[in-house]
Amino acid sequence: MKIAIAQYNPKVGDLNGNLSKTKEYIEKAKEKKCDLVVFPELSLTGYPPRDLLLRDDFLKACDRALQEIISYTQGIGVIVGTVIDDGNGFLLHNSALLISDGRIIGRVDKSLLPNYDVFEEARYFQPSKEVKCIEFKGMRLGISICEDIWNDEDVFGHERYSRNILDELYVHNPDIFINLSASPYHYGKHEIRKEMLAHYTQKYGIPFVYVNQIGGNDELVFDGSSMIYNADGQLILHGKTFEEDMIIYDTDKSYPSLSDWKEDISWLYHGLVYGVRDYFHKNGFSKALLGLSGGVDSALVACIAAEALGRENVLGVMMPSRYTSQESKDDARQLAKNLGIKYREISIENLFDEYLSIFNPEGDIHGDLAEENIQARIRGNLLMFIANREGRVLLCPSNKSEIAVGYSTLYGDSCGGMAVIGDVLKTEVYQLCRYVNRDNEIIPNNIITKAPTAELREGQKDEDSLPPYSILDKVLKMYIEDRVSLEEIINKGYDRQTVYRIINMIDRAEYKRRQIPPIIKLSDGDFGMGRRHPMVHGFRVDVYN
Amino acid sequence: MKIAIAQYNPKVGDLNGNLSKTKEYIEKAKEKKCDLVVFPELSLTGYPPRDLLLRDDFLKACDRALQEIISYTQGIGVIVGTVIDDGNGFLLHNSALLISDGRIIGRVDKSLLPNYDVFEEARYFQPSKEVKCIEFKGMRLGISICEDIWNDEDVFGHERYSRNILDELYVHNPDIFINLSASPYHYGKHEIRKEMLAHYTQKYGIPFVYVNQIGGNDELVFDGSSMIYNADGQLILHGKTFEEDMIIYDTDKSYPSLSDWKEDISWLYHGLVYGVRDYFHKNGFSKALLGLSGGVDSALVACIAAEALGRENVLGVMMPSRYTSQESKDDARQLAKNLGIKYREISIENLFDEYLSIFNPEGDIHGDLAEENIQARIRGNLLMFIANREGRVLLCPSNKSEIAVGYSTLYGDSCGGMAVIGDVLKTEVYQLCRYVNRDNEIIPNNIITKAPTAELREGQKDEDSLPPYSILDKVLKMYIEDRVSLEEIINKGYDRQTVYRIINMIDRAEYKRRQIPPIIKLSDGDFGMGRRHPMVHGFRVDVYN
Repeated sequence: MKIAIAQYNPKVGDLNGNLSKTKEYIEKAKEKKCDLVVFPELSLTGYPPRDLLLRDDFLKACDRALQEIISYTQGIGVIVGTVIDDGNGFLLHNSALLISDGRIIGRVDKSLLPNYDVFEEARYFQPSKEVKCIEFKGMRLGISICEDIWNDEDVFGHERYSRNILDELYVHNPDIFINLSASPYHYGKHEIRKEMLAHYTQKYGIPFVYVNQIGGNDELVFDGSSMIYNADGQLILHGKTFEEDMIIYDTDKSYPSLSDWKEDISWLYHGLVYGVRDYFHKNGFSKALLGLSGGVDSALVACIAAEALGRENVLGVMMPSRYTSQESKDDARQLAKNLGIKYREISIENLFDEYLSIFNPEGDIHGDLAEENIQARIRGNLLMFIANREGRVLLCPSNKSEIAVGYSTLYGDSCGGMAVIGDVLKTEVYQLCRYVNRDNEIIPNNIITKAPTAELREGQKDEDSLPPYSILDKVLKMYIEDRVSLEEIINKGYDRQTVYRIINMIDRAEYKRRQIPPIIKLSDGDFGMGRRHPMVHGFRVDVYN
Repeated sequence: MKIAIAQYNPKVGDLNGNLSKTKEYIEKAKEKKCDLVVFPELSLTGYPPRDLLLRDDFLKACDRALQEIISYTQGIGVIVGTVIDDGNGFLLHNSALLISDGRIIGRVDKSLLPNYDVFEEARYFQPSKEVKCIEFKGMRLGISICEDIWNDEDVFGHERYSRNILDELYVHNPDIFINLSASPYHYGKHEIRKEMLAHYTQKYGIPFVYVNQIGGNDELVFDGSSMIYNADGQLILHGKTFEEDMIIYDTDKSYPSLSDWKEDISWLYHGLVYGVRDYFHKNGFSKALLGLSGGVDSALVACIAAEALGRENVLGVMMPSRYTSQESKDDARQLAKNLGIKYREISIENLFDEYLSIFNPEGDIHGDLAEENIQARIRGNLLMFIANREGRVLLCPSNKSEIAVGYSTLYGDSCGGMAVIGDVLKTEVYQLCRYVNRDNEIIPNNIITKAPTAELREGQKDEDSLPPYSILDKVLKMYIEDRVSLEEIINKGYDRQTVYRIINMIDRAEYKRRQIPPIIKLSDGDFGMGRRHPMVHGFRVDVYN
């Protein structure tokens, strides 16, 4: 059997657009004489449709879109993902349908509904009660949907659900496994997927077709990287990463192994680029702006924006005050020049003086937080003025380490339509800058080598207020991403008081995170849509440990 | 049997504080010679603990707190709610424990885990597999937890779950039903609860003890209003509304009916007051500020803040521009005087001129959105400066109608630690103002009677940009709160184009809502923590209907 894998980029809720693209892929698969074409999870609606699923009119429109696909399947088998309503909005299923020659041959409902991290599928869907294979052209297809394959104790060390869906399907003697996924990318996830698929193909001894969505939808980015493993546990075909693609797999042919296909820092970088690009283009925006401080965070965001949107669409604005060094101004200007983006300089001094004259009538500087924050907020206002007047979207440069401990000014540097690197630790920001500079010095080296500072008062350095980033980031990675317990972190040799201080800083900054722009999720533990921590609570680690 | 209902106000995560209060109520119940004291759902952790439940150290601390309660139960039965971990964080239960004389007599796990609206319990908990009664002092107690009783087709017209827990318990011949709740208040919910409890007691013919938490935790407020129904379907005892209380119910006595106890607009008002008070006090804050525009929204928020925090702790700031009428200034000053709150006036003219001199060097006013928004943002900055310098928390005055359609300036009037009336429709704002003025004219009548305006340009009125509030609010209420489908709304006689316009305005404002301060939830369909709508999506009602 000749199977086409349609690794495509749907836009959530855009049923007309998704229909057109689905038809295009069906046509292409027919041209290539394929027997079957497989789309990702919820390919008609785009993933994640979220509360659109609670809208009666949306469900009806999905049904009409499905009818149109059904009428478009002459001479080929098509596996699409969509929502099926079995009862007035209270019995929704996340389903895969095998359709051919104008009729539905089989249907599989998702069995394991994830409700951790960024997922909340129990909000919408009911799980399948049982699964079976679907026969098509003499082959028994063992079809599953995304999470259905993410519950194997041998791979993950624990079980999250009581059912193992591949075991359940295997009882029905499948010839091949097919998984429709919309599996959000995070840096490091590719290696886990490879390990998982190698394990299953070795365990069950049949090939595995893994089809993943690509593109950005809200905070999530999907890398595609669809894969086909043969019955011997070897990767034999794969789709492109962060690019639409169609792969064709002939089950009767043999293929060489591609098992040395590995993830590297470029994946993280392209995830950021794709997150920005799809957020803009799917919203119909083309032009961005951001503040350039001469620091490493805004420099990286400028590079990502220039790659995502085209350098001619990006404006960098340096807004110096009395505390801004000449070095910062030179670095910002040089960066803009190297990148070829537009550049402007607007002093905040007169505005800062005007605020001081209102609040400090006696004329002196108090040196308090109010005066530090107002500088960041004036900058936020200037940027939003330009955004409103010129139809640009502001990008927020806050990184994950800052967002964790609340080291940013609400309505100041945290303004923007999207926190581009909000899930990237400061130490990873440096790694990405070195990746950007791999061939040429695009980001001036001085930006990368100087000590980080917010320049909101004389001689300020980040490390006056925060633990060193080398320590902070390691603790954050263990605690937030790898879910290592506090005692284990301390047992690894980290100072107890420093660890407690970091955790309490994280807790206290929750209120700021509630108002931060959407963060592109790129780690296995983000501070954006995956977090549901109370703001008002009385649990303090130094009291309770 | 003499049963004490401990309607108390826990603070999420504050195990020490909650332990102390629990012990106090146990003491009080002992003094009153009660046999049993019943606490609300998750009474030890406070509800909702949210992602604290993912923290290993929190679960360990909960276990230590439970051990302490167990050792405190000599001579009395105690039913507390807490989280029980049956397996390394992957098998958590939302449980009720009956403890007496230092040992656990019985345990009930929550069976129905809500995942709609603001609830996401499948993120944390596993459901019970079966339920049974617990015997104590010769009585068979049919214990359930909150949502367990919210799935009866006769009451709600549909079933959300396949299990009916009271039916399951009834098989085991209970003498009495006891439900531990943390049921977030919304305006109108009390009448639903009464109808539900009357139905159950008539259906099963045994008494019902309904214990509900009070207080505010993050966006949720809980009204208490615990109730006891006798076996004949009559309300016979109830707890106070928005106040801690202990009710004592002697199952051997008969009580007169209290069935005329009804909800009115004062409940909504006190919900707002409690939401503000607990947000401040549980966070250790005492002082608030807000901008006073001379309009109805900020006037209402000022009244709520003065009642919640004491008038001496509230500062109102009027920040006039060239577009501010004398009427607005007079109204704001009079309101502050009537309320007895602090009042300040700061002109934004010099700052506005400074921004204009940067962006309009030719000197004229462009009259664009950038110039309107910058005025709101200057005000946001001034207020945040005062907040930072004086240790005050800024209150955001945006109402639900504005938040729905995006009629507010991000980083401007939407700044604040809490959007107090963010779940109150504009027409309800007027109702609440009339409630505030029921005895005296606290809010100057002119504020209530004049046409709403943002005063960001000459002669501006809200209704130039929006449908009339009388139409807008009715559509919002049907669509967002009552979940009436678009076609039904249109069939009720609302103009199709107006309805489509409103829905598309709601969709387009999603990005603003992502950055709005936490909203006190007070309706059955909020734009805050209960909403998970995609920002980037292509579903447009005028295309798909």
